[in-house]
Amino acid sequence: MLLHLSTWLEVEKYLESSSGIIIPIGSTEQHGPTGLIGTDAVCAEFISHGVGEATQAMVGPTINIGMALHHTAFPGTISLRPSTLILVVKDYLTSLAKAGFSKFYFINGHGGNIATLKAAFSETYAYLEDMQTKNFQKVQCQLGNWFMCSSVCKLAKELYGDKEGSHATPSEVALTQYIYPQAIKQSFLAPDVAGGHRIYGPRDFRLRYPDGRMGSHPHLATPEHGKQFYHLAVEELSASYSKFLDQD
Amino acid sequence: MLLHLSTWLEVEKYLESSSGIIIPIGSTEQHGPTGLIGTDAVCAEFISHGVGEATQAMVGPTINIGMALHHTAFPGTISLRPSTLILVVKDYLTSLAKAGFSKFYFINGHGGNIATLKAAFSETYAYLEDMQTKNFQKVQCQLGNWFMCSSVCKLAKELYGDKEGSHATPSEVALTQYIYPQAIKQSFLAPDVAGGHRIYGPRDFRLRYPDGRMGSHPHLATPEHGKQFYHLAVEELSASYSKFLDQD
Amino acid sequence: MLLHLSTWLEVEKYLESSSGIIIPIGSTEQHGPTGLIGTDAVCAEFISHGVGEATQAMVGPTINIGMALHHTAFPGTISLRPSTLILVVKDYLTSLAKAGFSKFYFINGHGGNIATLKAAFSETYAYLEDMQTKNFQKVQCQLGNWFMCSSVCKLAKELYGDKEGSHATPSEVALTQYIYPQAIKQSFLAPDVAGGHRIYGPRDFRLRYPDGRMGSHPHLATPEHGKQFYHLAVEELSASYSKFLDQD
Amino acid sequence: MLLHLSTWLEVEKYLESSSGIIIPIGSTEQHGPTGLIGTDAVCAEFISHGVGEATQAMVGPTINIGMALHHTAFPGTISLRPSTLILVVKDYLTSLAKAGFSKFYFINGHGGNIATLKAAFSETYAYLEDMQTKNFQKVQCQLGNWFMCSSVCKLAKELYGDKEGSHATPSEVALTQYIYPQAIKQSFLAPDVAGGHRIYGPRDFRLRYPDGRMGSHPHLATPEHGKQFYHLAVEELSASYSKFLDQD
Amino acid sequence: MLLHLSTWLEVEKYLESSSGIIIPIGSTEQHGPTGLIGTDAVCAEFISHGVGEATQAMVGPTINIGMALHHTAFPGTISLRPSTLILVVKDYLTSLAKAGFSKFYFINGHGGNIATLKAAFSETYAYLEDMQTKNFQKVQCQLGNWFMCSSVCKLAKELYGDKEGSHATPSEVALTQYIYPQAIKQSFLAPDVAGGHRIYGPRDFRLRYPDGRMGSHPHLATPEHGKQFYHLAVEELSASYSKFLDQD
Amino acid sequence: MLLHLSTWLEVEKYLESSSGIIIPIGSTEQHGPTGLIGTDAVCAEFISHGVGEATQAMVGPTINIGMALHHTAFPGTISLRPSTLILVVKDYLTSLAKAGFSKFYFINGHGGNIATLKAAFSETYAYLEDMQTKNFQKVQCQLGNWFMCSSVCKLAKELYGDKEGSHATPSEVALTQYIYPQAIKQSFLAPDVAGGHRIYGPRDFRLRYPDGRMGSHPHLATPEHGKQFYHLAVEELSASYSKFLDQD
Repeated sequence: MLLHLSTWLEVEKYLESSSGIIIPIGSTEQHGPTGLIGTDAVCAEFISHGVGEATQAMVGPTINIGMALHHTAFPGTISLRPSTLILVVKDYLTSLAKAGFSKFYFINGHGGNIATLKAAFSETYAYLEDMQTKNFQKVQCQLGNWFMCSSVCKLAKELYGDKEGSHATPSEVALTQYIYPQAIKQSFLAPDVAGGHRIYGPRDFRLRYPDGRMGSHPHLATPEHGKQFYHLAVEELSASYSKFLDQD
Repeated sequence: MLLHLSTWLEVEKYLESSSGIIIPIGSTEQHGPTGLIGTDAVCAEFISHGVGEATQAMVGPTINIGMALHHTAFPGTISLRPSTLILVVKDYLTSLAKAGFSKFYFINGHGGNIATLKAAFSETYAYLEDMQTKNFQKVQCQLGNWFMCSSVCKLAKELYGDKEGSHATPSEVALTQYIYPQAIKQSFLAPDVAGGHRIYGPRDFRLRYPDGRMGSHPHLATPEHGKQFYHLAVEELSASYSKFLDQD
Repeated sequence: MLLHLSTWLEVEKYLESSSGIIIPIGSTEQHGPTGLIGTDAVCAEFISHGVGEATQAMVGPTINIGMALHHTAFPGTISLRPSTLILVVKDYLTSLAKAGFSKFYFINGHGGNIATLKAAFSETYAYLEDMQTKNFQKVQCQLGNWFMCSSVCKLAKELYGDKEGSHATPSEVALTQYIYPQAIKQSFLAPDVAGGHRIYGPRDFRLRYPDGRMGSHPHLATPEHGKQFYHLAVEELSASYSKFLDQD
Repeated sequence: MLLHLSTWLEVEKYLESSSGIIIPIGSTEQHGPTGLIGTDAVCAEFISHGVGEATQAMVGPTINIGMALHHTAFPGTISLRPSTLILVVKDYLTSLAKAGFSKFYFINGHGGNIATLKAAFSETYAYLEDMQTKNFQKVQCQLGNWFMCSSVCKLAKELYGDKEGSHATPSEVALTQYIYPQAIKQSFLAPDVAGGHRIYGPRDFRLRYPDGRMGSHPHLATPEHGKQFYHLAVEELSASYSKFLDQD
Repeated sequence: MLLHLSTWLEVEKYLESSSGIIIPIGSTEQHGPTGLIGTDAVCAEFISHGVGEATQAMVGPTINIGMALHHTAFPGTISLRPSTLILVVKDYLTSLAKAGFSKFYFINGHGGNIATLKAAFSETYAYLEDMQTKNFQKVQCQLGNWFMCSSVCKLAKELYGDKEGSHATPSEVALTQYIYPQAIKQSFLAPDVAGGHRIYGPRDFRLRYPDGRMGSHPHLATPEHGKQFYHLAVEELSASYSKFLDQD
Repeated sequence: MLLHLSTWLEVEKYLESSSGIIIPIGSTEQHGPTGLIGTDAVCAEFISHGVGEATQAMVGPTINIGMALHHTAFPGTISLRPSTLILVVKDYLTSLAKAGFSKFYFINGHGGNIATLKAAFSETYAYLEDMQTKNFQKVQCQLGNWFMCSSVCKLAKELYGDKEGSHATPSEVALTQYIYPQAIKQSFLAPDVAGGHRIYGPRDFRLRYPDGRMGSHPHLATPEHGKQFYHLAVEELSASYSKFLDQD
């Protein structure tokens, strides 16, 4: 059940039986010479819709711009500062908490969002308590990173071994190929690709990773792989969401 | 050309011939008993893609949550505070300005965004000047509200007369029906609907407009109408965007 | 009844019979070679005092610096950023709402304030609701732009036709001449004056409008005109304020 | 020379011979049963105009709302939070610094502003340095509190002795009587008035000082006293401003 | 009783008999060629511990970075902006107020903190009132500047006369020598030292005070002097804290 | 070399040969019935001093209040909100970066700080780039969590097995016992202790973990263990810091 394709009457009815919602969050950032700039948002949204179907959960609108400051030396990247993203998450959750939602499950497509999201959760709990928002004690946020699902990692290891890398990976590229087969890109990919450096500022990042990839060989990706990743992620995250709903 | 389905190399190439980008912005808010909560984002995004095709323009990711605080007494509405939305727009534009974009054309689906967007443009110009961001003098933001296109308003007048109203209107509902025929909603709509009140806080809004509509009769909408609105809006906004690009 | 010339005991007494207050807001910005930098604040304040007398309303202190970032390439202009002005309005209204005021009527002298003011109203409603400030549901803000009064526009059209322009207009200059006859300025005014351009950043503005006027011919202004504008604005805004007080 | 009654051309000319400006800052707060709510702004503005005439200095628009949170339990008080006032001062000074002003002399009418103003000066110096605003090294802010002028204090001591108190004092009331003889207020003033307590939050303040006065006996004030205070303050602050201009 | 060396059970017990806490605040800033960068934090902390022992009061963690922007042209200085320090103090006090503390006594080692601290107190009172935090009416903050204790000033006058100066003073250096005899520094100190200039921005400060001292002759300091200052400050501030606790 | 016990001349000299600095960061939060509230700050500071000695590195002042919002339902806990902590880190690093430091190595004692610290690093890189601060491209931040050192975890596993838990652990308690043997606390510790719950808001936390421990048995701690942990952590983090300095 997609929030943006529902009416407020349907939401009101939904809240009678559930206070849970799935929130896709991605990023708009370079993904190497062949990866889509929207990769992280596309994957998070598509998987969220799958989880929503599997669990009858409401799925909120996708936060498609995340914390990608370290990629901003590549054109096309758009990033919120962490302090802005914290406010966005706080406003998003506050709106829904007032309406009665209390179980917020973020399905995330971008490693760079994790730290800021966790900070935003803490900021929001404190704000709702300060406001004494109705039922603030019940509000719980949880984070599900699809690319860190154990089943996903296992398959990526089998398919790509060390060539998975850590950014613009064949697994995420495969997933976008499955979702948007019409947007499969071809470009020269140097066989040697840097990897293993820590991440600092945007200029430093581009110096270390000149084509944007971090240790990855995305030419290994296929739409068929993507389909497999999709089903594994949906299954694992659906179980995780259901468990989250069930706990106190 | 959709930014999220492009690679950074493609963006780099695009910037050689254009510094313009279209940015869809909508809202996530109640639209009466039969209107989709995502109406404003759905319409803005769909029209933006049409304009992007017609003008070969880059289209950025949709800002799908806007300034809808006055709708927050209805479940399902999600709103940023104006101060947050200003930061989001500032971060969005700053990221792109650093990469070389300078002509930002917002296609907006929600009247409630207009004031905050204009404030955000001013805030951003000042910030870029303070930062002395490369080419800050060239940065220009413009706002195209599809629902205020003269051709759109003329057709709405012909089709619905006074029954268009000002929120959850048949014209926007028609457009969503055209885009998502599978999500056409049925619900009882009282023939008498309030209209003409000013907008203050969220509780006041719900008292004045108990089912969320503002003077509108959305049951008059048809997908076929939606198609007409779509083509009119795309044509008019494409011309507006092209003129924007051409001016100094 | 001017707040700044009242005692707190008088305010306490006033609140027994009214919860309304008029708040003048202007700007401190260039108004062409002959217009006063304080034009917008001067006009808003003077008209507000007239409306206050006509309606027995309390008039608060003038917000004399507004959102004029686009004029800051001309010396003498002082502007708040929109994000600052939002906070100023929020603090101003919060102080008064706690004391029992709930009907806030802004008399505005500057078009550039409108967007930010509307954003500030939304921000304030949400803040007061979050705080659960006493009577927050009753708080209503309304905006009366004296230069957009229909009677004012009609007279300006009659007197100046197309030479009214849109900034440093003869109508507002006339009003300041009526208020401050000792400060009528003389300077060369080029007969050709730019007009019709959109407004972007401050440097762009000065390039397009080199002497600060936007399509206006302020040498047509006379103090006698100013007097007429004053009386028209006071009459129309007094009626508007009274209607505002009377509504729920 | 009043900024709000000047044109930008006149400001441009002024800057050829001086980079100094006087900025009046007051407050909008209760001043006991007989004191005007605008006392601090009225006094600061009037004296500033006097200093401006005496020294040929430009005088900027009055900041008429200051930091008066501790008075907000009395109706009619309006206060900015310190964090807001810091932003207001920063924006005010930044606008003028870009135009070439560098010597900012605040004439202040309210003790409660002093701490926040000093904080704002530090915040502004750092911001201008971070921005590398033109001539940022030359920017200097100085604070002149008229009520702390040695000549003013000496006269107050002579006229009122211990009955001067520290808020809603006869000296400031006298000055407002001189400026606005038509607004001299009569009200019962208890002969015993609390004094000497420290200031904490607004409710605490009103408990300790039930009628708003702090140890003062404002019925001793006369317009003639006010005239004397005015001339003493103008003389002393004019000398101080001139010395400020002359120093490096 | 040091908060950082206590358990939460001990704090819970402490709150049964007292709601007071001492909060040391210093700065991390240059103190001339021979003064320790941590002088202000070191002194405030050490004296606070002494006062805590003398009065059986809880002592909170030291705020060791304060408002020292004017010293930032000297390497090693670390400063918060005033707006940041206000937030730090607000968060610090809000955490403790929720737990039941209401009497906050700051022992301060740095003159540059005073203005921002006072602003922070006002900001905090207003925030706690807006939040309706439990017992918010009882919250009181008070500031004790050890270097302004009358007994301390008297001794400094006796020992150093005019050579005390106003920054990197022999009295504070003496106190650090008493606390850290192993960190007594030797360096050439020019016999002529600038003094008496007002403080503006960081570059201006360094130009006026090239070695960082303000009119002081810290070579006069001895550890024995430091011991005397310590005991005087502890005695005077202990009395002040006790009086603060006893008042309503 | 401790910054707070150095002079600015010594810092200036230090910067000739190194641009690295170690920054201890802890927290002020409940650590169960027997753990010190300052545990995280105490450990981070003590280990930092050890690493500073081992590597001849400068050690900055300890950030002793961190992100501990989830512990605030226990008295004695003090927490910054994440948005405040981000500003603190940004101001801290900006001050030092202007002076020439560029390698910032945080030694952290609290898991709850990690997310906000990472967000703060990103925020700071972007700010320094926007400001074009001297050498901003060279600025690098790195995080060393002493409790996650592999040698430390290995020893904790050997000594305590599953009884280490994840908050108020015997390993960190042991370290504080080694540092402050005079502050070893005794209290009843229930043999059954909750563990394994996720962390949400403060009230939820206290419900799940009534005495504050998370799965830990701190009575196993001894000062001798603490000494071992200290030496392991210093050795491992010293190597890590040295490697950080040596890299580009």
